[in-house]
Amino acid sequence: MHLLIVGGSDAGIAAGLRARELDPTSRVTIVVADRFPNYSICGLPFYLSGETPEWRQLAHRTTEELTSAGLDLLLNQTVTAILPSRHEVRVEDGHVAVGSLSYDRLVVATGAQPLPANLPGLGLPGVFPLHTMDDSFRVHDRLARGDVERAVIVGSGYIGLEMADALTQRGVQVSLFGRSATVLATVDPSFGHIISDELRRHGVDVFQGVAAEAIEADVGRLTVRGSEGTEVTAELVLVAPGVQPNASLAVDAGVETGVRGAIRVDRHMRTNLLDVFAAGDCVETWHRVLSAPTYLPLGTTAHKQGRVAGENAVGGERVFEGSLGTQVVKVFELAIARTGLRDPDARAAGFDPITVESEAWDHKQYYPNPRPLRIRVTGDRRTGRLLGAQMLGHWQAEIAKRIDVFAAALFHGMRVDGLSDLDLSYTPPLGSPWDAVQIAAQAWERAALAVAA
Amino acid sequence: MHLLIVGGSDAGIAAGLRARELDPTSRVTIVVADRFPNYSICGLPFYLSGETPEWRQLAHRTTEELTSAGLDLLLNQTVTAILPSRHEVRVEDGHVAVGSLSYDRLVVATGAQPLPANLPGLGLPGVFPLHTMDDSFRVHDRLARGDVERAVIVGSGYIGLEMADALTQRGVQVSLFGRSATVLATVDPSFGHIISDELRRHGVDVFQGVAAEAIEADVGRLTVRGSEGTEVTAELVLVAPGVQPNASLAVDAGVETGVRGAIRVDRHMRTNLLDVFAAGDCVETWHRVLSAPTYLPLGTTAHKQGRVAGENAVGGERVFEGSLGTQVVKVFELAIARTGLRDPDARAAGFDPITVESEAWDHKQYYPNPRPLRIRVTGDRRTGRLLGAQMLGHWQAEIAKRIDVFAAALFHGMRVDGLSDLDLSYTPPLGSPWDAVQIAAQAWERAALAVAA
Repeated sequence: MHLLIVGGSDAGIAAGLRARELDPTSRVTIVVADRFPNYSICGLPFYLSGETPEWRQLAHRTTEELTSAGLDLLLNQTVTAILPSRHEVRVEDGHVAVGSLSYDRLVVATGAQPLPANLPGLGLPGVFPLHTMDDSFRVHDRLARGDVERAVIVGSGYIGLEMADALTQRGVQVSLFGRSATVLATVDPSFGHIISDELRRHGVDVFQGVAAEAIEADVGRLTVRGSEGTEVTAELVLVAPGVQPNASLAVDAGVETGVRGAIRVDRHMRTNLLDVFAAGDCVETWHRVLSAPTYLPLGTTAHKQGRVAGENAVGGERVFEGSLGTQVVKVFELAIARTGLRDPDARAAGFDPITVESEAWDHKQYYPNPRPLRIRVTGDRRTGRLLGAQMLGHWQAEIAKRIDVFAAALFHGMRVDGLSDLDLSYTPPLGSPWDAVQIAAQAWERAALAVAA
Repeated sequence: MHLLIVGGSDAGIAAGLRARELDPTSRVTIVVADRFPNYSICGLPFYLSGETPEWRQLAHRTTEELTSAGLDLLLNQTVTAILPSRHEVRVEDGHVAVGSLSYDRLVVATGAQPLPANLPGLGLPGVFPLHTMDDSFRVHDRLARGDVERAVIVGSGYIGLEMADALTQRGVQVSLFGRSATVLATVDPSFGHIISDELRRHGVDVFQGVAAEAIEADVGRLTVRGSEGTEVTAELVLVAPGVQPNASLAVDAGVETGVRGAIRVDRHMRTNLLDVFAAGDCVETWHRVLSAPTYLPLGTTAHKQGRVAGENAVGGERVFEGSLGTQVVKVFELAIARTGLRDPDARAAGFDPITVESEAWDHKQYYPNPRPLRIRVTGDRRTGRLLGAQMLGHWQAEIAKRIDVFAAALFHGMRVDGLSDLDLSYTPPLGSPWDAVQIAAQAWERAALAVAA
């Protein structure tokens, strides 16, 4: 059995490892477009901040580890065509055709690509996207020249925020442009305001609700002009506009697409083509609460989908159980996390949502350094079902794993009041007899009860 | 409706608050044997270590907060008899009968009491139990005299370990006696050894597998003699032998008991007597994995049972969903957590358990200060069902909330391989694309597969 995988990032590698784990007789070949298989792209901000001094540390696994797990890697090679009727792909090295590879099963894991930013001046020297290892090397080299005093970051999603943190740590004065009304539009505005305050507290100039309209060069400097007359000059501009599926290879071969042009897959990660699976940032993602496909390009999801695809490619019958859009990001001293739906998504999906924000301590106040957590719980008024949660507080206040308790509850379709039934751990330095997640759930119940009355 | 509650600790207060929340017309009276309603007994070690300088901080709520929530508190009063046929209790203040109180519904929340230690010399000056607020004042006063250089702690359960940490922080040289083969017998020996190393690293003398046999006084000093000829002299001896249900008041009234003499209750926290509920450390606890009653005196469980009892006392139909024995304790730099069953309990209950220990990092190694976590996953070989988990590592490595992810999975009867389906959060400073709990679950799967093959 020859399993061929196009793409050497999270989904592709996860598929290959799982296939080899379950069927050590299978042959697995992974075609990787660059020379960085299995790199943690989520780690780029920490490489650029200097917290991770050596870029090679960003590898989830070394090439040697992958090879000794039985994966054949073809680096710096590009698949230019899939020929499904022949069970073959065409491969190029640089722009030189190197031939064809046949497959019994194929996994397409071609990832995402930056959204077109439609911003004049994108091609100027000193303006960089941040999507690949090579992008980050270019930014790193630019910073190493030592003359970057000011930077503009266009985009206030999680990569924009992490880069604002990273560059500030390197002593660069950062201005952040965001189109949405508040930063990190994947959480509610009340949290966005707190995050903006945190950015400003660390010296970041936040221009929110401002669309970047053009970048202009002038004697070695760059000026970013935005709506409302905003204008900031800097030596470096980073553009983080979000991503879209990189699906054209599959589409050209006849693969069907769905939400936002992502490859359509069933819950087994099969495409419409025989023996062709797909996984990761190039595919639609089944949303467990919505019971519908969405587009949620996240590393965690890519790993899971890849693992399912790899298992099924060697004869398994594993179902992808769905994503909840669980995410966490650290911005200076804050961690911000979310899982499931917020009011607008929930309402659009036909739920009757109510979101209640409350505060609880990460541990008993009598033990040193208690940290307040702000928690927003979204539930359905009619059924009491938990729909989502958001949490914000000090990054060492166990927020990442507390959102996971909500995620586990969501996974099982629990009601908000069911959270109080969970037997969670407690010791005064690390929690409360009712953990913060349960205190927040109880606050939701009281508020929902009050609304109903 | 008059709800009378006997006992002002976790279960009693939780019952009263829940009753008032759901039925603001109800009258709730709580009879409290001392003057410390709603105190966090779990906080005593931190008061004695000095980390919590003021004992009043240990109150979960002040008396004023309880009163303004509509709870009538009778402090320093003791219920000496329940007369179920008359729906009355007899009350004493000190040893003076002060009369009778009638009830429509009664909640017995009389808690636990120390196990008889059967240790000659227990009554000597300088020998203290640690069970009540008054116990801790006595220890505090003894320490405040400033001449305690050495202490012996008898008992290596979580209170013994927390006190070893607390007294070491105060500059006292601690010797710890434990009867079980390894400390903290509620986790497996491989963890016990690591905890002993941590204790020794901080200067604690650990005498493990040693039963204290007698305490003797000699010119102001105390000598603890143990099995195997062990003999340690100190100025202070703390005895933490574990607890048993304090059920005699209820038993005298005709309430039935079960496991270890705890009050027998149904899943609604009703006793066999009409209109008499019971909750907390005095009752049997339904174990969700065993589907059987156990005795698990824990604050978290007491809060939950009290809440259920309070809800049902005012006409609700809430079911106690069961305990998993989830616990976490901090000992110096370590946190140690557990939930569910370990091999011996699981085997005794008819499961076919296998426990696999593995190591994972709390966050991506390329981000500063990664901490290794040791994780033991117990699952059923036949069905793949998750039965329990134990985790140990640095106390700031989100262990408390990671064990909660296992607890949430156990609550829902998940299989071990289902953990990989959970959509958990990830950012490099706080996790991995597969969180440590999922890495441990995957290690279990591989080992179980290898055993099966």
